[in-house]
Parts: sequence; C-alpha cells; structure tokens
Amino acid sequence: MRYIWKNGKILPESEAHVSVYDSAMMFGDCVFEMTRSFNGEQFKLREHLERLFRSVKYVQIPLEMTIDELETVCLQVAEANNHGPDDEHRLMINVTRGPLAIYTDVVSTGPTVTVTDFPLRWTVAGMGKLFERGINAVIPSQRAIPAHLLNPKVKCRSRLHYMMANIEVSRFKGDNNWPLLLDENGHAAESSGANFFCVQENNRGDVCIVSANIGNALEGISQNYIFELAKQIKSNEYGFDSCPVKTMPLTVQDIYSANEAFFTATPFCMLPVTSLNGVPIGKGRWAGHIGRIYTQLLDKWSENVGVDIKAQIQAWDKGKQDGPSPYQFK
Amino acid sequence: MRYIWKNGKILPESEAHVSVYDSAMMFGDCVFEMTRSFNGEQFKLREHLERLFRSVKYVQIPLEMTIDELETVCLQVAEANNHGPDDEHRLMINVTRGPLAIYTDVVSTGPTVTVTDFPLRWTVAGMGKLFERGINAVIPSQRAIPAHLLNPKVKCRSRLHYMMANIEVSRFKGDNNWPLLLDENGHAAESSGANFFCVQENNRGDVCIVSANIGNALEGISQNYIFELAKQIKSNEYGFDSCPVKTMPLTVQDIYSANEAFFTATPFCMLPVTSLNGVPIGKGRWAGHIGRIYTQLLDKWSENVGVDIKAQIQAWDKGKQDGPSPYQFK
Amino acid sequence: MRYIWKNGKILPESEAHVSVYDSAMMFGDCVFEMTRSFNGEQFKLREHLERLFRSVKYVQIPLEMTIDELETVCLQVAEANNHGPDDEHRLMINVTRGPLAIYTDVVSTGPTVTVTDFPLRWTVAGMGKLFERGINAVIPSQRAIPAHLLNPKVKCRSRLHYMMANIEVSRFKGDNNWPLLLDENGHAAESSGANFFCVQENNRGDVCIVSANIGNALEGISQNYIFELAKQIKSNEYGFDSCPVKTMPLTVQDIYSANEAFFTATPFCMLPVTSLNGVPIGKGRWAGHIGRIYTQLLDKWSENVGVDIKAQIQAWDKGKQDGPSPYQFK
Amino acid sequence: MRYIWKNGKILPESEAHVSVYDSAMMFGDCVFEMTRSFNGEQFKLREHLERLFRSVKYVQIPLEMTIDELETVCLQVAEANNHGPDDEHRLMINVTRGPLAIYTDVVSTGPTVTVTDFPLRWTVAGMGKLFERGINAVIPSQRAIPAHLLNPKVKCRSRLHYMMANIEVSRFKGDNNWPLLLDENGHAAESSGANFFCVQENNRGDVCIVSANIGNALEGISQNYIFELAKQIKSNEYGFDSCPVKTMPLTVQDIYSANEAFFTATPFCMLPVTSLNGVPIGKGRWAGHIGRIYTQLLDKWSENVGVDIKAQIQAWDKGKQDGPSPYQFK
Amino acid sequence: MRYIWKNGKILPESEAHVSVYDSAMMFGDCVFEMTRSFNGEQFKLREHLERLFRSVKYVQIPLEMTIDELETVCLQVAEANNHGPDDEHRLMINVTRGPLAIYTDVVSTGPTVTVTDFPLRWTVAGMGKLFERGINAVIPSQRAIPAHLLNPKVKCRSRLHYMMANIEVSRFKGDNNWPLLLDENGHAAESSGANFFCVQENNRGDVCIVSANIGNALEGISQNYIFELAKQIKSNEYGFDSCPVKTMPLTVQDIYSANEAFFTATPFCMLPVTSLNGVPIGKGRWAGHIGRIYTQLLDKWSENVGVDIKAQIQAWDKGKQDGPSPYQFK
Amino acid sequence: MRYIWKNGKILPESEAHVSVYDSAMMFGDCVFEMTRSFNGEQFKLREHLERLFRSVKYVQIPLEMTIDELETVCLQVAEANNHGPDDEHRLMINVTRGPLAIYTDVVSTGPTVTVTDFPLRWTVAGMGKLFERGINAVIPSQRAIPAHLLNPKVKCRSRLHYMMANIEVSRFKGDNNWPLLLDENGHAAESSGANFFCVQENNRGDVCIVSANIGNALEGISQNYIFELAKQIKSNEYGFDSCPVKTMPLTVQDIYSANEAFFTATPFCMLPVTSLNGVPIGKGRWAGHIGRIYTQLLDKWSENVGVDIKAQIQAWDKGKQDGPSPYQFK
Repeated sequence: MRYIWKNGKILPESEAHVSVYDSAMMFGDCVFEMTRSFNGEQFKLREHLERLFRSVKYVQIPLEMTIDELETVCLQVAEANNHGPDDEHRLMINVTRGPLAIYTDVVSTGPTVTVTDFPLRWTVAGMGKLFERGINAVIPSQRAIPAHLLNPKVKCRSRLHYMMANIEVSRFKGDNNWPLLLDENGHAAESSGANFFCVQENNRGDVCIVSANIGNALEGISQNYIFELAKQIKSNEYGFDSCPVKTMPLTVQDIYSANEAFFTATPFCMLPVTSLNGVPIGKGRWAGHIGRIYTQLLDKWSENVGVDIKAQIQAWDKGKQDGPSPYQFK
Repeated sequence: MRYIWKNGKILPESEAHVSVYDSAMMFGDCVFEMTRSFNGEQFKLREHLERLFRSVKYVQIPLEMTIDELETVCLQVAEANNHGPDDEHRLMINVTRGPLAIYTDVVSTGPTVTVTDFPLRWTVAGMGKLFERGINAVIPSQRAIPAHLLNPKVKCRSRLHYMMANIEVSRFKGDNNWPLLLDENGHAAESSGANFFCVQENNRGDVCIVSANIGNALEGISQNYIFELAKQIKSNEYGFDSCPVKTMPLTVQDIYSANEAFFTATPFCMLPVTSLNGVPIGKGRWAGHIGRIYTQLLDKWSENVGVDIKAQIQAWDKGKQDGPSPYQFK
Repeated sequence: MRYIWKNGKILPESEAHVSVYDSAMMFGDCVFEMTRSFNGEQFKLREHLERLFRSVKYVQIPLEMTIDELETVCLQVAEANNHGPDDEHRLMINVTRGPLAIYTDVVSTGPTVTVTDFPLRWTVAGMGKLFERGINAVIPSQRAIPAHLLNPKVKCRSRLHYMMANIEVSRFKGDNNWPLLLDENGHAAESSGANFFCVQENNRGDVCIVSANIGNALEGISQNYIFELAKQIKSNEYGFDSCPVKTMPLTVQDIYSANEAFFTATPFCMLPVTSLNGVPIGKGRWAGHIGRIYTQLLDKWSENVGVDIKAQIQAWDKGKQDGPSPYQFK
Repeated sequence: MRYIWKNGKILPESEAHVSVYDSAMMFGDCVFEMTRSFNGEQFKLREHLERLFRSVKYVQIPLEMTIDELETVCLQVAEANNHGPDDEHRLMINVTRGPLAIYTDVVSTGPTVTVTDFPLRWTVAGMGKLFERGINAVIPSQRAIPAHLLNPKVKCRSRLHYMMANIEVSRFKGDNNWPLLLDENGHAAESSGANFFCVQENNRGDVCIVSANIGNALEGISQNYIFELAKQIKSNEYGFDSCPVKTMPLTVQDIYSANEAFFTATPFCMLPVTSLNGVPIGKGRWAGHIGRIYTQLLDKWSENVGVDIKAQIQAWDKGKQDGPSPYQFK
Repeated sequence: MRYIWKNGKILPESEAHVSVYDSAMMFGDCVFEMTRSFNGEQFKLREHLERLFRSVKYVQIPLEMTIDELETVCLQVAEANNHGPDDEHRLMINVTRGPLAIYTDVVSTGPTVTVTDFPLRWTVAGMGKLFERGINAVIPSQRAIPAHLLNPKVKCRSRLHYMMANIEVSRFKGDNNWPLLLDENGHAAESSGANFFCVQENNRGDVCIVSANIGNALEGISQNYIFELAKQIKSNEYGFDSCPVKTMPLTVQDIYSANEAFFTATPFCMLPVTSLNGVPIGKGRWAGHIGRIYTQLLDKWSENVGVDIKAQIQAWDKGKQDGPSPYQFK
Repeated sequence: MRYIWKNGKILPESEAHVSVYDSAMMFGDCVFEMTRSFNGEQFKLREHLERLFRSVKYVQIPLEMTIDELETVCLQVAEANNHGPDDEHRLMINVTRGPLAIYTDVVSTGPTVTVTDFPLRWTVAGMGKLFERGINAVIPSQRAIPAHLLNPKVKCRSRLHYMMANIEVSRFKGDNNWPLLLDENGHAAESSGANFFCVQENNRGDVCIVSANIGNALEGISQNYIFELAKQIKSNEYGFDSCPVKTMPLTVQDIYSANEAFFTATPFCMLPVTSLNGVPIGKGRWAGHIGRIYTQLLDKWSENVGVDIKAQIQAWDKGKQDGPSPYQFK
C-alpha cells in the first residue's frame, strides 16, 4: 500500500489526482519538484523546496505553508512508503492554485499541495544501457520558450513544448536520441527535463567544464552539484587538481568541437552524451567515447552518496525487458 | 446529482479528476473544448469537436475515438445532466495522452477522454454588468507565445502565460480590466480565452469589422460566427446592407483610432470593449460608449438562437452578490 | 512681420519657442503636423488635423481644443501671414504635454499648442533638380523602430533615429541620396519623412502601384492621395483605364525589380527614385529613368490643384544658389 | 532672479527656450545632462560632462566648445544662481544641433548649448516618503528600445517611450509605482531615468550587488558610484568587508528571488524598491522591507558628501502638500 | 560527347569548371538557373532567364550580355547536346563575378557565364516511386535565412544551409523525407530547392490551393505555373470550375489540417507530400493519400506539355537500381 | 611554373578548378583555410588545420585524410612553389563534399581536397598605405548571419553576404572604407574576413584590449594571437606591464568612445581603424590617429616573426600602381 499527502491529510495513493476544474488542469498552473533518495535518504531536499518556493512566488500562488512545514511533510510521506531497501524514493510535490471560480460546487477553494512518493526505478527504467552507450543529443525544430514569455527557471506544468520536442526526436533514426533544445539565439538550452554540460579544451590544453545554463533553462539541483563535484576531482592525465567549471552560451559548433558532453537530472544524476545529431563528440580517438571527466565526476558523486549510481540503475534495468524512458515517445 | 463520462463510462461528477502522473498534469499535455447551449441546445458542437480533433492531431495523441462517437457522448452527458430549463449546459471535453511511463502501477495506459457538464451561469457570474459598462482592455507586459514555439491554434492546457497575464492585469486600477496580449510584432493577439475585434471607419466613411486573429491566436468558434452574422445585419445609420468583415494585424494605435471594439468567446458570446489602457475607444461623442455594430451583431445573435443573451446573463447576475469572473484574478 | 498662434494668442514669430522644461524638450513628447498650400489654399488640412488628433490620443495628452477650433486657428494664422502670391504657406502645428512638474516657477501648466507658418520654398530649396535627376534611395544600417516600441503612425518629435539615418546617408557617394529605412523584417518602411512607392509589372504585363506602408511607417496624407489619383489616370501605353494601387511588403529585391519608384511627402508631393543603393531601378532601356506612371500621377496632381508642382519648385530653385535639403546632413 | 547661459551669454531664465525650428524640437535631436550638488558643491560634474561629450560624438553634432570651457560655464551658472544654503543646484545642460535649414530667417545657425540651474527640491518633491515605503517597480508592456535602433547610452531627448511607460504605470493600483522596462530579451533595462540594482544571495550565503545595466540602459553616474561605495561598506551581519558588485542580465524571476532592490539616479541618489509587480522582494521576514545593503550604501554616500540625503529630501517633502514626482503621470 | 558554352566559346564538357580563385568559389558569389525540357523543348526558358537577370541585378554582377543573347546560347547548347529522344535536357546557367583581384596571373578578369546541359534523368533518379508513395516533409531545426540577410528570391550558390537541412533530415527514420524549412516566424518557407503548396478546405466546403511563398522563399517557375494550371482544372467532386489559388503564411498546424500538400520544382514538376513529421496529411479516410487536386493538376500539366510526367520519371527509375535523389544525403 | 595538390596528385596550377557539378559550386558547400608565411615559414599552420577540421566536422563532409597527412601536403605544396625569397606563400586549402549525384558521368565521387599556393603580395596589394592612414570602418545595412542559421565559426564558401557588404561599403565616400557588420543584436561581429578589436580606457585610466568576437564571428587565428601578444607588451605611458585583453559585445557607441581600434586577419596581420562611419575614433588630440597599443602589438608581432610586417607590405605597394584590395568592390 502506498500513501500520499494532500492538503494536510495522509491518503491512499489512489487519491493522487486533481480536479479537471483545478487551475492546474485548466492552465498548466501548477509548480512542482521531483526528488530522489540515495540509500533511502533524500538528496538536496532543501534545495528542491527552496526552488519550489521561488516558483510559487513567481506564479503568485498564495501558499500559506512554510518551507519547514513542507519539508516535514516530505519526510513523513517518504517514511510512510518505506517498503524496504530495494528501491529509492522519488517524491513529487505539486502546488496548484486550486479550482477555478467557474466551478464552485464540487470542490473547495485555495491552493492544493500534494506530495506523492514512487519508486525511482520506474523513472529510470531502461536508462542503464545509456551509461555505456551514451545518448545521441538531437536538436529538434522545437525551440525553447524564451524566459520573457515563460520563465524556464520556474518549474511548472505548462510544458507541452517539451513533449513536442520528445515526439519530434523519437522520429530520428536510432533509439538513444534525447532532445537538446536551442533557445532563440541558437544556444543550447536544455533537454526536456535535464541540463546540458560539455567539457572544452583550448589550444593550450586547459580543460574546463561548461554548463549551458545561461538564463534559458531551469537551474538544476544536479547541475549545481556538478559545480561542487568539480572542486573535488583530480586528474593526472589532464594535470589539474580541481577542474574549473563555468557557464557559457554554447552553439552547435561549440558542442561538436568539445571533448565530452553529458546531461544531468535528478533521477539518473549524469548520463554521457556521445554524439550530437549523429556526429561523434570528442577529438581523434576519443570521438564518440564516454568522457574521462564525466567518469571522474560520476565516480565522485557515487562515492559521496554511498551508492554506485550507474550499477544501481543497470541492476534495475536487468529486471525489466523493454521499459521506455520518459524521454522516449511511443 | 451530476454525471460525467470518462473513457467509456458514465460516472458521478466526483470522478472528474486526473492522476498526478498523467501527461496532462506533468506537461500540460491535454487538449480540450468548452461549449455552451442556448435553450439547452448545444451550439456549434460539431465545430468544437472538429477543432478538438485538429488539436489532437497536432499534439499527436493516438486517440481512437471518431468524431461521431465523441459527439454522441457529448449529447448523452448533456442529457444526463438535464436539471430543467433554468440554466444552460457548459460541456468540457478533455483529451490527455494518459499516464506517463514513469508511473506504471496505479493507473492504466493510453489516452483519457473526459466529458463533463456544468452550469454556464457559473462561468459568466458577474459579467452581466459588463454588457452595459464595457471592458477596459489592458496590454500586459506578458506577450503571447509565438506559433512556432507553441501553436495558439491548438487549444491546450499549457497556458500558464494566460494566467500570468490575468494576474498582471488584476493589478491595474479599476475592476473591469481584461488582458489583451500582443504578439512579438506588437499586434493584438487575444485575451486569455477570448478573441478581439474592432470596427474601423476610413476617411470615406466606409465601415469594416476587423478581427485581430492573424495566426497568433486561437481560431474562435464565436469569432467565426461573427463572420456569418456580419452578413445578416443592416444599418440605416451607416448605410450598408451587410457589413464587411476581415482579418488584419492591429496595433495599439489602430485600436485607439477604431470606432468600437469587442471580445468574443463561447460563454458570453460578445462583450463590448470601451477602452484600451484606460483610453476611450471611439470618436467624438461616441468615445467610450457601447458600439452600434456591436449591438446589432449581439441582437442578431440573440434572435438567431432564440435567447436574449445579455438579459439571460444579467438575470443570473442578480442572483449573485459578488461572483468573480474567470478573467479576474483574486 | 510674421505671426504665430500659441495657446490662444496671436504673437510675433519670435515667440515660436518652447521652454527647456517642457515635456516636448525633455522627452520628445510632442506631436505635430506640417501642411502646405496650393495657390495659398491649404491642402487636405482636415486630414492633417484628424491625424494630429489620433496622435494626441495615442500619447494621451489631455488636449481640450476641438478639431474645429484648431482648424479655425490654422486658417487664421495663414491669413495673418499673407504676404502676397509669391509663395505657399507651410503651417506647423505642435502639441506638447506642457512643462514638467520638475519645474514649477517660470512656466504655466498644461498642454501647449503652437501654430506657425513659414514659406514652403524654404523647405523645398534645392529639390527642383531632383524632379529631373531622381533620388538615389539608400538603405542605411539604421533600421526603423518597430511599431510596438514607438508607433510610427504617431507623428511625434522623438525621431532621433531619422536624423541618424540622414547623417549616415550623407556619407555615401553622390549628392542625391535619401535614406530608405528597412523595418526589422527587412521590408522598406519609409524615408525620414516621406513615404515610398514603387510600380510593379508582372509576367502578364499587368502594372500596379505599390505602397510600402504596412504598419511600419507613418500613414502619409500624400500617400493616401496617390490612392485617389491612381483612379484618375489613364495610359495608352500600358493599356489600362485606372491603375490599381495596393499596399505590400517590399524587400530590396522587389524594388530592384520594379519598373519605377517614388517618394511622397507634403512639401514636394512626389519625387522620382531612380536608383536604390546605386542600382538603377527599371527594366531595360527604362532603367534609371523617370517613370511614366510617376509622371502621369504628378501631372494629374498638378492639374487637380491648379499648380504646376514641379515648375513651381524649380522656379524657386533658381532663386537660390546652394540651399541644402532637410534630408541632406552637413 | 535666476540666470541661464546660452551660446556664450548669461541671460535671464525666461530665455531658457528653444525655437520650434530647432532640430531638438523637430527630431528630439538634442543631448543633455542633469546634475546635482551636495551642500552647493556639484557632484561628479566632470563625469557628467564626459558622458555629454560621448553623446555629442554619437549624434555627430559639430560642437566646438571644449569640455573645460563647458565645465567653467557650468560652475559660473551655479554661482549666478546662488540663493543661499536652503537648496541644492540642479544644472541642466542641453546641446542641440541648432535650427534646421528649412527655416532660415528668424534664427541663427549651428549648435546651441544651454545651461540652466533650478532647485533640486522641485525634482524630488514628494519622494521623501519613498525612502520609508519603497517603490513598487512595475514591468510595463512598453519595452526598452534596443541599442542598435537608438543607443540608450546616449542621453538624448528622443525618449517618448519613457513617457509612455510612465503613463502606463500610472494606471496601476497604488501610488508608488515606477516603471522597470524590459529589453527585447526580457532582461531588466532601466526605469525612465533611473538605473536598477538588486542584491542577490546564493546557496552558500554569499551576497552580491548586481547592476542590471548590460548594454540596454544608460550608464548612470550614480550607478557607477555604487561600484565605488560597495568597496567602502562593511557588514557584520553578512560577514563581508566590502561587498562584491557586478553587472548581470536580470529576469523578472531573478528579481523576485533577490534579497533587496533599489533604483539609482542623480536627484535622489538611491531609492529602495520593495516590490515588483506587487510581489514583495526579499526572503522570509525581510520580504517587502528596506534592504540592509541599501541602507549601508546610502549611509556611506551621505557620509561621503556630508549631506543626510534622505533627511534632506524628507524635509523638503514636508514643505509640500501633494507634489507629484516626475515619474507620476497625471 | 557533350558540349558546354563558356564566355563565348563552345567547349567540351570537361571544361565545365570554375577556378578556385573565382568569386563563385570564394564567396558562393554566383547566380544560376536550371531548366528542363519536355520532348526536347525547353519549358519556360524565358521566365528562367528573366529571374536570372533579376538575380544578377541584385548581386550587382556587371554582366554585359543581353537576355536575348543568352537565350540564343541556351538553345544552341541544347542543340549541340542532342543525343536523340531518349531523355530531356537540363540546362544549367551559371553567372559568376569572375576571379578575385587576389589572384591575377592564371585567370582572366570579369564575369564568367557558363551554360551546360545534362540529362534530366540524372536529377530525378529514384524519384519515380515518390509519385505513388508521397514525401514525408520534415521540419528541420535549420531555419530559412531571412530575406534581409540573404534574399531567397535570388537564386544563388551561397546555400550551405540547404545542404545542412538535407543532412539533418537524412537522419530521420524512413527514406522519403524531404526538408521543409520554417522561416523565423515559424511559417513554411521552402524545401532545399522546391516550393511548397497545400490544399485547404474551410467549414463551408470551399477548397483553395495555397502557396507557402510569402517573401521567404524563391519565386519558383513551377510554382507560378500552378497558378495558371489552377484555372484550367475542373472537379465534379469538389464542385468548382477552376480552383482558386493564393499565397498565405502557413504554420505547421495549418499543414496538419490541410487536405493535401505537394512540392513543385523544375525537374519533377510536382511531387505529393503525404505526411509532415510523420503525421498523415488529409482528413478522415483521405489522410496520407495522394490528393485529388494534386492529381488533377499533374494530369493537366502532362496534357499541356505532351509528356506523361510521372510515367516518364518512373520509366527512368526502372533502369536504375538505387539512385539517390539530390535531396537525400548519404 | 606553379603547382597545386588535388586529391593526392601534384598538378600544374591551371588544374586549380572545381566542377560546376561539385557541391561546392552548387551550395557553397566547401570549407577552407588561407595561411601566410613569414620569411617563407608557414605561420600557425597547425591552428589553421585544426580549425579546418572543426569546419569539416560541422558540415559533416566524410573526409578520410588525417590532420597530419594534410599538414604534410601543405608543406610539400609550399616547397614545390619556392621561387626565392622575394615573397611570402599564401596557401589555400579547400575541402568540398564532391560532385552531386545529379551528375554522375564526367566526375568522380567523394570529397575533393585542393591545396594551392600563391604570392601573398597579390592579396595585400594596395594595403600598405592603410598602415599610415587607417581604415574607415563602415556599418553596412547588411547584417551578419546569426550562428543558428549559418555558424560563422565555420569558415565556409557560402558567404555571399560578405560580398554584398563589400559592395555596399564601396559606395561610401572615401576609398579606405571596410565593412564592419553588426549582428542581429547590434553588436560588432566582423569585417568580411577580418576580426575587430578596440582599446578601451575606463574612468580610472585602466586600459584594456577588447575583441568583438562573441559567438557571431569567425574565431580568427590572428585574433587569437593578439591574446598572446598582449601579454608581451609593456607601456610606460599607460603604466602596465602586460595589457589585459578580453572579449565583449561592442555597440557602435562603445567603438566611438574607444581609444583605438584595429582589424586582424592573416594576410596583413593588423591594420588600424581610425574612424567609424567617418567619426574619428580616439579621445581629444588622439582622435583619428594610429593607436599606441596597436603600434606596440604590431611591433612585437614583427619582432616575433622576424619580418617588419608593415615595411614588407609597403614595399610591395610601391611596385604596384593601382592594385585593388579584395575588400574594394569595382
């Protein structure tokens, strides 16, 4: 039996629904967060909630809960769904403005907060092989929506264009395609739910991790964590003690010329991107291979959280035949 | 007791909800229509359904119902909710892509179609006085999203920017403000759920009804009906037999210089816009007054459908103290 | 002795000035019109005043005069400056919002209306030769300001970009260069104070007068008059009875491929444009020559107003050595 | 009796006017500066004049005065208007291209330079209460004009769009609204005559002063002074010795999430911005309050110039009933 | 043996080359036309040459040949390559600005005109099956270059973005994909060398042929011919005598909702487009089928030129195993 | 006798041509590099080849040569054309996709690589005087093509817009005009084959070299070398040991206000830009003069390569009467 929390009550999971008259359903007027645990411990929960409260503020939902109260609820829901050590918890927190005034009988008024919890393995089903093979990022014709029309830093439910990008990319040859949306200026923005990084090396052999996020994409919790991890890695090969990391606009040409590339997102942490539009990323014999910086970062992350991130997901993979990823449209 | 229809079953209205794992809730990935009746008879139901099927096609939801089947369901739901002649039926038809693969246990797979029915008077509560007073259209800083990023001709649930426009406009002085969004080129697009028209008169005294819809707005069913009505009206004052009507890009300046203006939408049919940004629309002594063409069109519409549209809404108004309009953010 | 009218009083011309604390000087916050006479009779004065009142409405200056009152003043000023039949009257009507609240001692409050009158020949000095030689229109790097940022249909004093275009074009080789500003989409908008037309001929030999004005330029009084004149001309050569005229977006390529081109503006009525960026306009042996449609239109205009427009300006030219045109920056 | 300087002569203030035939009035073709004194001493006069000469160069007015000559004139005008210690001097320097060639009789040729001086208290009338209450910045639908169409770094008189923004914002509820214009990319540009700053704090508690000016706004003298002041402040609370300050693109979302915000401009130095579009700026219990960094900066500024900036303006306020601010349209 | 013509001389085909120092190779600075014959007779040769001369004018190549002279050369080259009735002639006319001044020894100066002739069947190899199966148009991420940056009406050799679109589309699933580039506003522009049409039907059953060409695409000779053909077809089914045809901006949604679609270009005349991005075009049972209007137009075209266009190309197809189309990147 | 290398063979220079059916001629589908020597030694050859391979990757030409192989060929071609110490070698390396499938008889298939070598003095003919006089940069109406439409970092042959800019600028008064293209945001991009720099000085007297290259221009080999040189210069006058150099967006206003400016490109290394649009660059008595930082950089460059760059070009100049520069359109 699984449980959720809705507006103050613990309810069975079958109550995890929203009225068709709720502003969330009418306008995509809902902000949210999705987390994950490592060994059952929520990771960066507070950062997720702080971002949620920034989203709430932006869309001006008159939420009366405090961040501390919501944090307590989250931990409570995770506790209620403790089914043993065989999986990680994925919490989903939705905040809607509530039912619209056009419908006044069957539903109450005011914001609705829902916290649900489901197994992480359902999200990452089938992603295990991508740790070895890498993703082919594809630039779809669908562009990211500019921040002045709909701010991508607000994690909201009004994201049909993400789904349109997923559908478009599903029509490319191959089955490891994920979209990489460009913004209006032709700079890499984000995938439909993941941030993009590449590793660049200049003429003098200096290596730098570059995050694409420059105002046209969500500020990812995992993305931010890369900035921390970069300080912790060392490399004899490249010859640095900690790798510099910065944020820069990236064109398609910049990515083709990069050494490595990867996506970050909460459920899978980091996945390698080995080609863009079918063109292998990386120079010379490294072209199309999993990157060395990527590997160091992922290893460090695993070490820090006490979970072999890649092995865990690959193990789940084996228990599944042909599970689609949420990024794969059928 | 009220009833709905969901994926083949008639259910009580309390079942009119959507799973938080449905693509509709995750991405605003849902297309819909909302209709109305006159004297209990659905108006232009077929046109609404044809538009729905165009939306389904655009977002590529693999819907298997035919338009005829859905039409039958709509009439059946209206019949099931027949509570006498005191109100009109407002049908809402939602088509979602269904639950995402990330959540596979509690919910079934595939598109979900829901048809609900609620009293029209709930939507138009408080609009009666606007027939006399007119709306003050306000240009918000929020721009319409361009068609190549999210096609406005697709009636979808990914419309947070509409709500943001509503909120913005609610902060203007006065309580009859409705947003009129500009597109990226500065042309009037639409309100958050209504089409915009104005009436222009050139140097030679020729009068023309002008629809703002030029690819940056939903193609309204009511909007289209204005094209039919314009052929049916006569005017001694202006001296024409039927009034020409066309579609043109309109700048703020064009609207200031117009004779009249109005919004159209399914629930209220037509409401006069008597000022823009607080500047009265209309020339000389007509400035800020309800327009003559507007009045003729509304009268003709009422005659055609056998309902005094304005009187009906105003009557409902009296039965209500302070009902908010859906366009009024609180 | 010359006279002006300012806020209700006839004053000597030396009073034709504006306080440095007036909103006109502080923000370019002033709308205006400039007219001309033929044989001393004001031409299309009412149209000018109607456009002025549209401009006043747009910038929301709380002007209390009526259009009839202002028309009377205009005629009165022209009468007061009647110095015989040797010149035409050019009236200039300025409406400012008045002094800003930042300066409250030396000046009164509220809108200021000024009507002045000066000899048309001062404006058109040196233009006589252009009737023979034609203008070389030049596309400057300065683009027109889009209507949603500053509506070009409002004839205002906030037009520094016009002057910048004039300066830029003055640096091109030759001395008959006038700017032709493109809008953001690369379509011809207008010169810095003149509308642009060309004459196109399709594969089937059909000829059409095309006005560039499509929302990115002032709606010219002279421009509108071309639409009237086009109905009045006949041509055996081209084989039509009246020439069709329409409004269309024009790219540089469209103009290169046109048969003829010309500018229209109040002081000179019509001037031929014989090349664009130094490339002769017109096909085969007609390339770079004064167009036939242009000539017919100008002749008809002269006939209608009882003044040989070209001859009059050329006669003034002779009485002047080196008069600069307002479009020529020194 | 007050005096001005115009093209070499000291004249009574009633001569502070410009011909209607001057290019300044015809095109907004005039560049300018406005200064202020502290205890009668001009502040940063040289920086103002250097910016003026950059503006002159950009618009290519053939000015023959040197910066030293103009500085001498400025000090001379301030001296001539010395009416005791009860007010500060606000100098206004206008440079126009001079009368256009279209009018050649009543006025001389060449650039006109005018220096006037008026009491600062007239400009800041009614602003005293804003030091306590804070400004509500409002994003109007009017966007800033991009630099490639009209460079905002040039302080010119062709700024009707500023006035249009002021008018638009005056229609919002409340009476402490000032516009904050966005640029075409949706980044904060400036108010209609003031620069915008906010104070950001990242996850690690690092605080940074951020100036919005990134090429889409005037480079303010007061804005630049903030960079100097930031080096001089200390804070136990925040734990830094001098506060870092940088220039970054700011979206609406960035401002909502900031700790504090303020405007800077010459007359009032710094005014707090406590909300944006009605949404309180600042986190938790600090939301909507005057910021701590703001207060430190203003205190330091007051200390540096020997004037309690806030107290002085508030004292003037009391001597006035209902003085409108220049940013308040009536 | 095949022959070409170059700057006045008939030469063997092996001389059909351009110096690497020619402006054509250095800048893509070359304009051109490609024609076809029916039964050996050149089709619309004069229209092709008129468009070539418009291109020459735009890029300002100082060509001294007249259009009559060039027409004579074209016919002469076709005559020289007369190898019997088994194929049609495809003429290619290139006009370059000539070698650049950076290289002055090995090559002569001035424009180079080359006319070559090769069998049409080489171009259309493998297209036969598309007449039955239809093309899947795909929107690539590559957008058309706007007219103000590089005018698409000029048929030039600076079209790398076409090749990039071809490459991108070759990576989609399926082997009948052709690109359909959107312009910056999201409207269909053209394929990489073909114009796009669709057939629309409104609520009242009125049918109209719509050409996408609105200033963002080449003005096709075949495209223009559709306007002629549309006057010649009749249809009992649709109930019209000649089908109206017009030019309109088309969004992706408009195309999804169309009845039919097709590409036009010189070598193949017309090819059906049966899906867009994999979504079948057409309503109900007609979805994904070859359109009826398309078929009527092609039949009429065949009749007019005395060649069964489809049968001829399909016959050539059989003589070839696996010939790639120029639109198919390998 | 001069030699070239083409697809594996050393051939006489007369074979330096490309088939009209090659994709290079059909689409401008060719990437290239042009180098120079100092005292006969190739300069930065490896950097040129690395950029070439990045271009090849971007346009996805299936080239099978390695960078080492191509480097060997380049040196071999230079050796084969060794005609003594009187000139420097300019290598040109072209890589095309090869003949299109539309023409299959006369030409072979697959990429074509050509390496040619010609005297540098032909390219720089007539540039000697510009070292003294400086260039007048002119902003043409032609804008740079944005990276998302055609990436300027790819050195390709699809650059007709460069030639159009050259032609436009050739029509300005004076004969030292070179274009400086703006990007879509109004920032300086590049000349038609040269990068742009300016030298800025802030209020505190700090001097900085600023490169305009920010994603809208080719990444120049010479441009990159400036970053190295800047570390090597010292200045007593300015008081620094090495001059900071950075990359920033530059508006026209920024350049007017700069101390100095210059272009860099392989053939001439560095040429001073002394005015922009005819407005002298530089402050006070330095306005319009050759800059001091420019001179130091050029001197250092000359010293490093053992060639007096300026003297060498000026010496060649004297041996030539009226050689046009490639940037001068005739």
